Amino acid sequence: MHLPKTDKKRIVIIGGGFGGISLAKKLRGLDAQIVLVDKHNYHTFQPLLYQVSTSGLEPDSIAYPIRKVLKNLDNFHFRWATVKEIDPVKQEIHTDIGQLTYDYLVLATGTKTNFFGNTDIEKYAMPMKSVPQALNIRSLMLQNFEDADNCDDLEERKALLNFSIVGGGPTGVELAGAFAELKRNVFPKDYKHLNIDEMQIHLFEGSDRILPPMSEHASKKATRFLQELGVKIHLNTMVSTYDGERLTLKDNTTIRTKNFIWAAGVTGAIVEGFENSVLKDRLNRYKVNKYNQVEGYESIFAIGDIAYMQTDEFPDGHPQVAQPAIQQGELLAQNLKRSFKGETMRPFVYYDKGSLATIGRNKAVADIKKLRFGGFFAWFVWMFVHLMALVGFRNKVVVFFNWAYNYINYDKAARLIVRPFTPKT
Amino acid sequence: MHLPKTDKKRIVIIGGGFGGISLAKKLRGLDAQIVLVDKHNYHTFQPLLYQVSTSGLEPDSIAYPIRKVLKNLDNFHFRWATVKEIDPVKQEIHTDIGQLTYDYLVLATGTKTNFFGNTDIEKYAMPMKSVPQALNIRSLMLQNFEDADNCDDLEERKALLNFSIVGGGPTGVELAGAFAELKRNVFPKDYKHLNIDEMQIHLFEGSDRILPPMSEHASKKATRFLQELGVKIHLNTMVSTYDGERLTLKDNTTIRTKNFIWAAGVTGAIVEGFENSVLKDRLNRYKVNKYNQVEGYESIFAIGDIAYMQTDEFPDGHPQVAQPAIQQGELLAQNLKRSFKGETMRPFVYYDKGSLATIGRNKAVADIKKLRFGGFFAWFVWMFVHLMALVGFRNKVVVFFNWAYNYINYDKAARLIVRPFTPKT
Repeated sequence: MHLPKTDKKRIVIIGGGFGGISLAKKLRGLDAQIVLVDKHNYHTFQPLLYQVSTSGLEPDSIAYPIRKVLKNLDNFHFRWATVKEIDPVKQEIHTDIGQLTYDYLVLATGTKTNFFGNTDIEKYAMPMKSVPQALNIRSLMLQNFEDADNCDDLEERKALLNFSIVGGGPTGVELAGAFAELKRNVFPKDYKHLNIDEMQIHLFEGSDRILPPMSEHASKKATRFLQELGVKIHLNTMVSTYDGERLTLKDNTTIRTKNFIWAAGVTGAIVEGFENSVLKDRLNRYKVNKYNQVEGYESIFAIGDIAYMQTDEFPDGHPQVAQPAIQQGELLAQNLKRSFKGETMRPFVYYDKGSLATIGRNKAVADIKKLRFGGFFAWFVWMFVHLMALVGFRNKVVVFFNWAYNYINYDKAARLIVRPFTPKT
Repeated sequence: MHLPKTDKKRIVIIGGGFGGISLAKKLRGLDAQIVLVDKHNYHTFQPLLYQVSTSGLEPDSIAYPIRKVLKNLDNFHFRWATVKEIDPVKQEIHTDIGQLTYDYLVLATGTKTNFFGNTDIEKYAMPMKSVPQALNIRSLMLQNFEDADNCDDLEERKALLNFSIVGGGPTGVELAGAFAELKRNVFPKDYKHLNIDEMQIHLFEGSDRILPPMSEHASKKATRFLQELGVKIHLNTMVSTYDGERLTLKDNTTIRTKNFIWAAGVTGAIVEGFENSVLKDRLNRYKVNKYNQVEGYESIFAIGDIAYMQTDEFPDGHPQVAQPAIQQGELLAQNLKRSFKGETMRPFVYYDKGSLATIGRNKAVADIKKLRFGGFFAWFVWMFVHLMALVGFRNKVVVFFNWAYNYINYDKAARLIVRPFTPKT
């Protein structure tokens, strides 16, 4: 890899998600060469990805060029590359555009979709972890509506208009709600000659309630909101496979669907080159100490979703959401600065700001500290928090305008099939 | 093709460009079944496509779902399909999603890029006639900058940063100006470690002036504006070929470039099934009479860029721009309504509103009636006219906000490589 020669220490960050970006921003002022490597040239605001899938927002509203976020950082280099392997002995990183050495390495690679080893699901399901995947879901949805409008076979039409989402976590719940709003407010205007009741939305969850990481109160409220919108919720229901045409449940029931979205779980996006013992098995996260140092390595850190920090309060590690990643990134920046000055590092303490999930127009649920609430106020808080968290003034304005426009007009404007999606056969 | 059965006459429109949309909108109130077929599910505002290529705007700002534009039209059916062939004897249209019959057929297919038979150019050049093509140019540009930032070979870097545009018409001129603005205002901030002077922009034009359809005054002004921005203009220069790495001029000079954009000409996007005699050869347009009826057919019409209407004032047909298409579409709607009532149709008379082209910030040229002017005022008029011409309130606001933001911040925000472009080898 080509980088300007320097006497400074080199800090390499792999991943431009919430953790990597928060860290890099706060490294401003440190006398080091900073290299951030990501397979995308932009940071994705993942909590709003489902709105890209469902025609509510365009990608540029929720993604931000990494070079632009970090334009005030001196000695900063972005490299658009995929990391192949790490050699922790030689302190080397191998990528598809060459290799580079590091003095400090920060793993902030986050997670990827977990298909639990089911290759059929991996092949045919639509995951939603990246902007291109979100756009694929949008294209497929619109294509299937176009096909349905031109289809005189009732069963085929129902399959085209069946939306089955696996996973009742925030992603699945927010997606189901957004599809239901499209059904209620948008598609009847676009497809006047279709019977919109033929569109069915199913949400499958393996446990006994949706939004399992949130409170019972939030689960109940969200369930009611989704049911009011016509979403069919299947609890304690495991989907065993999908062949591109038909999903099969554990009890062998089958359902025909052309829109099968997999939001059932994630697994660490690990990088090759470490010995297995470093990893915690189940979620593929790197075991780290309270300074986010990867077990056994002094100059390798892991932050965010890919880090497994066992504490008394969080014996299974921190929740895999934005806040721990941001907070760990910010603390690590301070710790690196301390370490450069010969000072001792400070341990990580998670400050839980609470959880929010939105179901649709005026409908959201919130668990903040000991407060549990749902409805219009929670929805308002959800909007405000997400708007403020977006990177950049332009994105805030564009998202706000789109939300206001969509709210007033009962519309979702981004209904272009720019890159048609070809389902695999 | 599946369409509701009806006793009404069926009007089929092929193409949702300026002509097809203007026609369909004005058909409101006519007691007929109207079917519009297009290979995209959206209408593209082509005059601003170059801003999608150059990171100024996102596709959803300049494209509009066809179903949404025409939502107030009764008995209207959109079909997302590619037309394969027409059978004018059986009055049938064959598409990739089935066939349908028509009582009236309107060809509004516009033009496609003309490679003048050069298969190498067709294979390696970047055309810019559609939203996906515009996005490809954007991705390639950003990818080449990423590669250049990681490249220590000067010659290779210069090839990555060479932008060669063939065709000095409005598209080529506007693109060259936009690249020059990126060079001046945007890329130096993103790529601080690159020497931005290594980015070179070339504009090749076969005739002796750029903007040949406009006045001499406009050509001169535009030339000066482009030169001030550092664009190298090559007049009387024919590009004979490009092999993906190197372009060759007629005089055998070669230039290494990884960004080769072909805006040298268009040819009618004709539909198979007509006898050749109907067509005018050179530009592949259908010969029509003053009612836009295709020569030899009473119930087949052609409007816009695909129509060749010879008049005393326009012996070579009307200019292939938006205005004739819009005006012919609107007149044809009236004529069809007259015809349904047994009244006689009225002949087409073109009302020339003038021509505008923009080069960049505060820089545009205008020929309006007998007025020829350039500079800030022309640029202001250009912005106003284009903003007003955009379909939909939302698009107007979003484009206006983006322009204002970009103007104030000397920025172009849409710098995401969402779908990386893979150059052919």
